[in-house]
This record gives sequence, C-alpha cells and structure tokens, in this order.
Amino acid sequence: MEDAAARFAGIVGDRNLLTGDQVSEDYAHDESLTCDPRKPAHVAKPATAEEVAALLVAAAEHDVPVTARGSGSGLSGGARPRADGLVISFERMNAVLEVDTANQVAVVQPGVTLAELDAKTSAVGLAYTVYPGELSASIGGNVGTNAGGMRAVKYGVTRHNILGLQAVLPTGEIIRTGGKTSKVSTGYDLTQLIIGSEGTLALATEVIVKLYPRLAHSATLLAPFGDLTQVMEAVPVLLASGLAPNILEYIDNLTMAAITYHEQLSLGVPEEIQQATQAYLVVGLENRDGDRLDGDAGRAGELLAELGATDVYVLDGGSARKLIEAREKAFWTAKAAGADDVIDVVVPRSEMPGFLAKARELALAAEAGAVGCGHAGDGNVHLAIFCKDPDKRHRLLHDIFAAGIACGGAISGEHGIGQAKRQHFVDLEDPAKLALMRRIKQAFDPTDILNPGVLF
Amino acid sequence: MEDAAARFAGIVGDRNLLTGDQVSEDYAHDESLTCDPRKPAHVAKPATAEEVAALLVAAAEHDVPVTARGSGSGLSGGARPRADGLVISFERMNAVLEVDTANQVAVVQPGVTLAELDAKTSAVGLAYTVYPGELSASIGGNVGTNAGGMRAVKYGVTRHNILGLQAVLPTGEIIRTGGKTSKVSTGYDLTQLIIGSEGTLALATEVIVKLYPRLAHSATLLAPFGDLTQVMEAVPVLLASGLAPNILEYIDNLTMAAITYHEQLSLGVPEEIQQATQAYLVVGLENRDGDRLDGDAGRAGELLAELGATDVYVLDGGSARKLIEAREKAFWTAKAAGADDVIDVVVPRSEMPGFLAKARELALAAEAGAVGCGHAGDGNVHLAIFCKDPDKRHRLLHDIFAAGIACGGAISGEHGIGQAKRQHFVDLEDPAKLALMRRIKQAFDPTDILNPGVLF
Repeated sequence: MEDAAARFAGIVGDRNLLTGDQVSEDYAHDESLTCDPRKPAHVAKPATAEEVAALLVAAAEHDVPVTARGSGSGLSGGARPRADGLVISFERMNAVLEVDTANQVAVVQPGVTLAELDAKTSAVGLAYTVYPGELSASIGGNVGTNAGGMRAVKYGVTRHNILGLQAVLPTGEIIRTGGKTSKVSTGYDLTQLIIGSEGTLALATEVIVKLYPRLAHSATLLAPFGDLTQVMEAVPVLLASGLAPNILEYIDNLTMAAITYHEQLSLGVPEEIQQATQAYLVVGLENRDGDRLDGDAGRAGELLAELGATDVYVLDGGSARKLIEAREKAFWTAKAAGADDVIDVVVPRSEMPGFLAKARELALAAEAGAVGCGHAGDGNVHLAIFCKDPDKRHRLLHDIFAAGIACGGAISGEHGIGQAKRQHFVDLEDPAKLALMRRIKQAFDPTDILNPGVLF
Repeated sequence: MEDAAARFAGIVGDRNLLTGDQVSEDYAHDESLTCDPRKPAHVAKPATAEEVAALLVAAAEHDVPVTARGSGSGLSGGARPRADGLVISFERMNAVLEVDTANQVAVVQPGVTLAELDAKTSAVGLAYTVYPGELSASIGGNVGTNAGGMRAVKYGVTRHNILGLQAVLPTGEIIRTGGKTSKVSTGYDLTQLIIGSEGTLALATEVIVKLYPRLAHSATLLAPFGDLTQVMEAVPVLLASGLAPNILEYIDNLTMAAITYHEQLSLGVPEEIQQATQAYLVVGLENRDGDRLDGDAGRAGELLAELGATDVYVLDGGSARKLIEAREKAFWTAKAAGADDVIDVVVPRSEMPGFLAKARELALAAEAGAVGCGHAGDGNVHLAIFCKDPDKRHRLLHDIFAAGIACGGAISGEHGIGQAKRQHFVDLEDPAKLALMRRIKQAFDPTDILNPGVLF
C-alpha cells in the first residue's frame, strides 16, 4: 500500500496527497442518510486531466479502487469510498475556464460549484438552468448523477444541458466528446453515456455546459388545493397552456408545515385554508418582459382557480425566494425531523396520484411514514421515509420502488442509485438490461477500478 | 441461404418476406449520393417486436447481416444493405400507438412518418418539434441518425426529444429504456446510446417522443446581408435577445438563387439588393399570442437592421411556407444541379465564417465547388460539393472534415456517418474513442450482425 501512496504522491505532489490520519472525515461520506462513513486509504487532489489519467493508471496497476468526489452533496452514497480506495477529489480543478457568449456555452472544470457558475454566467446575462436543491454541488457531481432539480420542467436535466466533455478513461486515455454544438451525429454519444454513470465509466475533467438567456422577470404563485389529485390534474393543463412554467412543484401539507416552521416562513395563507389543504402547487413563471410576465401570472391564476385551487397567492419576491429556498432545503428539514431515508422515485406525471396513494398505503401497512414534496411537472416524487428498522425499511423501499416501476417509472429521477439503492436496482431492473450495462462497464473499465460497488 | 429464407418466412409469414427477384430496387439504397444501390438477399416486414427479436436470433444463427430500414430517406448510406443481407423494413410497424396529452408524449412504432405524427399531434394542439427536411422520414430512421433539422435551435435534436424506447438487442432480448419521464437517473442511459447509433447497436421497436404545445402564431423574417460574417455575428445576438427563434437559417446567394429558381419562388427582394447580397438569414418566430408575436417580429426586425441587414422582409404566410419548403428541399435542388455529394459538418456557430472560408479555399484549390446553406443557429453547415473525380473528392472531403474538427466540430451534425463517410470517420476520429466505440459495439452485438460496414 505504501508503494501505491508513493506513486500517487509522485503524480500530484506530496501536499496534494492525503493518507492515513491526514484523511479527514469529510472524505468518508456524502449526504446519503443510510451509507455509513468509510474513510479511504488515500485522497489525491489532481490539478490536470493528465494527473487524473496518471492516477487511474497507477490505481489500476496497484489494484486500488477509485472514487471521484466533487462537493460530496450526493444523496445515494455514490461518493462514499472504499476503505482500501483512492478518492480523487476535484477540489483544485475548480475553474470556470470560459464563458463563451457567442456560442452560449461555458467550459468548466468538474470542481466548479453551481453557485460559482451562476455568478459567472449572471455577469453576462446568461444562465446555466439546472438547479438541483444544493448550490454548493459541483458540476462534476451533477454529471455523475445526471442531476435534475426544479427547473427541469422547462429546461430539462443535466443530460439535456451538457454538450461535451473532456474525460479520462479508466485505461488512462484522455478523450473529448461532443463540443460547443447541440447537433452531433458522428458515432456513439459518449457524452450521454458518461452522464449519469456515477463515476463508474470515466471521470469528467472538463464540461461544456449550455447556457440560456437569463430572463429578467419572474413570478411565483402558490395555490392550495383540497385534494392532491386536483394538483396533479392541474399540471398538464398548465403545461399545455404555453405559459412554459419553469417551476411546477407540489408540497404536501405536512411537508409545507415542516418547512415553513423550520424556516420560520409566513406565506399569508389563512389558518382555515391551511387546515383544508391537502397539497400546494407552486408555479414559477419567467419572462424577458415585465408586462408579459404580469399577463402570464394573471392567466396562470385564472387557470389555477378553474382547476380547483382554494385560492391563489402571488408571492412577493422575498417570500417567493424564501419558499423556493425552503423547498430546496426540504431534505435537511426531513433529516432534522428524523427521516430514516429520502427517495426520489420518478413516474409519468399522470401516475403521481396513484403512485402516491400506493406508497402511503405501503407505508401505513409497514407502520412507517412517507411524506413529501416533489417536482410535479416531472413526476419526480421526493418522499421522506420514517421507518427505523433497517430490514423493514428495505422491504418497504423495495415495494415502493416496485410500485414506481409498475407505473412506468424508475427508482431514481435525479439522486442516482449509488450504494444506497444498489441492491434494489439489482433486484428490480430487467436482467437483460443489467447484463448489457455490465458489458458496457467492462468495455470502459476492464479492471473494474472505477467506483466498484456503485450501481451494480 | 434457402435455409435462412425459410426461417425468416416462418417468423413473418411468406407474404412478408421478399427474396431474390421479389426484392425491389427501393430496398437497395437510401438517398446518399455516393453509395451505389445494392440489393439485399432478403427483406422481412415484421409486425411486432417479438418478430424482430426472432429475426435477429435467426440472422445471427445463419450469419446473415441485418440492416434496418424506415423510409429510406437517409443521406449517408446507413440503410444500404449488404448483398448477402437481410433488410428489416419497418413499413408494417407504422402505428401511432398513443398520443398522451396528460404526459405530453406520443408512443409510436418506428415506421411512423413525421408527417403522420404531425397530423396526429396537431389534432390535440401538441407538436413533435424535430423537423428534418423530409417529412416522409420515419421516426425509427430519425432515431438511427439522431436527426436534427431547422427547429433544433429552439427545441434540440432527436436525442433531446426521445424519452424512451422499446428496443431489440442483436442477442434477441426485448428491452425497455427510459419512459414517459424527462428525469431518470437509474443506470446507464441506453436510450441515448441507441439514438444515433445508425442501426448498429439495437433496433427500436417503439419510441416515446416528447411533445410541446403547438403555438398558434408564427412569423418568418428574411434578412439579406452583404457579408456572410455579419450573418454569423447576428446569430448570437438574436439568441441572447430572449426572442427564442425557432428557425435561424442562412442561405448563401448561389443557393438562394438556385432554390428560388427551382421552386419558382418570388420573395419580393429587389434585384439590386439580391446583387449586393452574399447571404440571407431566415428568422422564424412563434408565440401562443398574436400580439406578442407582432411585438417580437418588430423587435427582431430592429435587431437585424442594427446588425447590418440591408433590409428586412416579413414574409406572408404563403411565401414563408414556400421559402421554408424550398430550403428543406435544398438537397434535391443540389442533386438536380449535379452535386456530387452533400455534407453537413457541424462547428461551434462562432466558427462558421472561418470554417466556410476554409472550405471554399479548399474547394477552390481542388478546382471543385462548395456552396450551401445551413442551420446558422446550430453551426450545422450543409455544403453541396461539385467535384466529379472520386479520389480528388475524397481528399477534398477529408480536408473539409479535418478543418471542421479543427474548429471544435464534427463530421456530421445530423446526417450521420453511415457507409458514405465511414472511411473519413475512421481516419479522423481519435483512435482511443474509436476503440472504445468498438468495445461498446461488441458489448451489444458480439456476432456483429447489425449493420456491419456502417460507422466502423
């Protein structure tokens, strides 16, 4: 093992390799609620793609498993290392290399955070539109899990907004995929294959992200509904209207109570309406023109009333921002409330009422709790699971995931499988697809050094 | 060989298997200008995924190479069969299975044409927004080549608008990938890997396409420019404006003269302006609201004038439709004019002036012609190549492709590699990526029966 450490130190320099007690607790985990921390043997902090390539070659020779790490904000244990492993931390590869206004793209290193990219693109009137809850998340991590977030309903998820990569293969080659173009029909799309592969196929060392004009005006509407099914029925109507909402979130009454209490947030909804509400729909609108936005907000309000909302509140900027932030922190609220796991099944949005009813029925039968909120426009249901017993919880999750798949959905819409949901994935996925994915893994990583134990 | 034919006939029925003289010339080619027709030994017309699976298993056992065929409108020889091969024609699998308004998706069989899908979605106020020039093209073929077209500048290409597939692996398994959801982070994205693989990895037997609201109002602006560079400089400004054009095409003066003459189209541009024009920019706008559209068209006109357009013409509906149709037929115009090849290099859009200058310089040096038009918003340059000598043309194309790649682009933006550009792809692509793609091919198709000779 000392041999390997010396080799790694030779590549990144002594000060950029941590071993043994130098490895802090931070590198032992991500934010998954169910994966116990596990310190790796080594942490290397490369500065270039060439150093990453040399690390992978050395790791393969020394049979040391490698886990890539961005900000460690993942929720599935995808960045939880092996005890005998090497963590490649991208904390030093954190530069926005270029914001290219002519091509409306940015070229960034994987360690760049969403917050920093937002600041850099804002300065030129553009925006990277993928907003998962956590702005401290890194672009590299977002590539790994194919992060989604609230604005996916208008702009799509990470895979729809990444045009190209520089990536290092586990065999040490540095490749470039895609480019500063939306159109490419020249061989297999390696960009899309690497996105969402959770660090098991290749490590991104540069990312070309698509940017959109940053629209100057936005509005947030809050609509309480007496019945969750009405919320779900409102969603396709709003989407078909052409209003192009950039946020369409539902928050159930328990979760709304928890996040408003936790964040000490008052939204002006009278107590008697709160009491009669089963779920809230949050509608975000944006426009380059203020008058058009006002027109759109008015039309959305009319539609919501027609669709059965008890009332419609147009939130002022401060309240809207606080509500969205509170919603984004729903994970932390759930964690603080003692949730034992947080999952993010995705189903066709028309299936959400049926799926939610089924999930609650299953939770009830298991004497467990399942409350939540989610991306109503995308059918992406975030459920906080309250169930202390690990075996019972495993069975409950299995049944909830199976119910989601039976609705035409998948285990995870944006968090990924990681280590936390690996067993469920292996148990529930079509064996023919699993076998094919394993053969693809083998095509990239014949010695299986990249994140073994994640996904499969 | 008779053995194989009997086996195939047993699967699809005698009337749905053509052999020998029954095989018409239609099945011998696509629309590539450079791939000679080549009749296959067999043509099978399956009706179900199960029949496709059985055909693939039988083909593998009899060592018969298989080429999938939709409408045969491809431009790279991707559907040109092997002489000893089996064509699987999807002409009987041509049903729109479902237009699902709640989830804004359609589920279609691969033989469905874009024209038919447009009619079906139009009836419910929705649209499939991928519009390559040829509306007789099939969805299955579009999946194969990752078709693009004019509206990609707003809506993306095929891969951005396909959410899931049913597909048959060459080993005979029928799998389902993705679903009626935009978000999935559950294993490798097989949907995206199959899209653009030109029939070499798996055959799509069902396709879930994303639909958008069909916006009621549209306008088309035509702006002549004295200088091609000004056209290219106008593009990012228009895109940054937030006007969200759904068409941004440039047409050089020679091509405009050819298509207006060929289609007997008069656009009202005075002779003296035509004479002083190097290229035209066509800007398409759309809105759900007529007044907003008028405002947007006015703003776009002001911007174009500021950006150096000699004049700006707002085309009436009839002229606009004719111009767009004529532009979509540019391939046929080029063919009628005696073009020896048509290529579609993609480069970052900021690189278009430099790339076009380089391509013309190379053509001039080779005593050849290179004129064209293209998707200015996407950097996708369509060039008609006039050069009779095949060896000289091969060298010219090699140099033009190399120039495109040197600009950060790729050989093809939407037509694909097929057989026509295979040698250029193999010569110019990074060997590490080629080797990886070949390993991926092996992971799907260990006996190499799907479209051998295409891509690699």
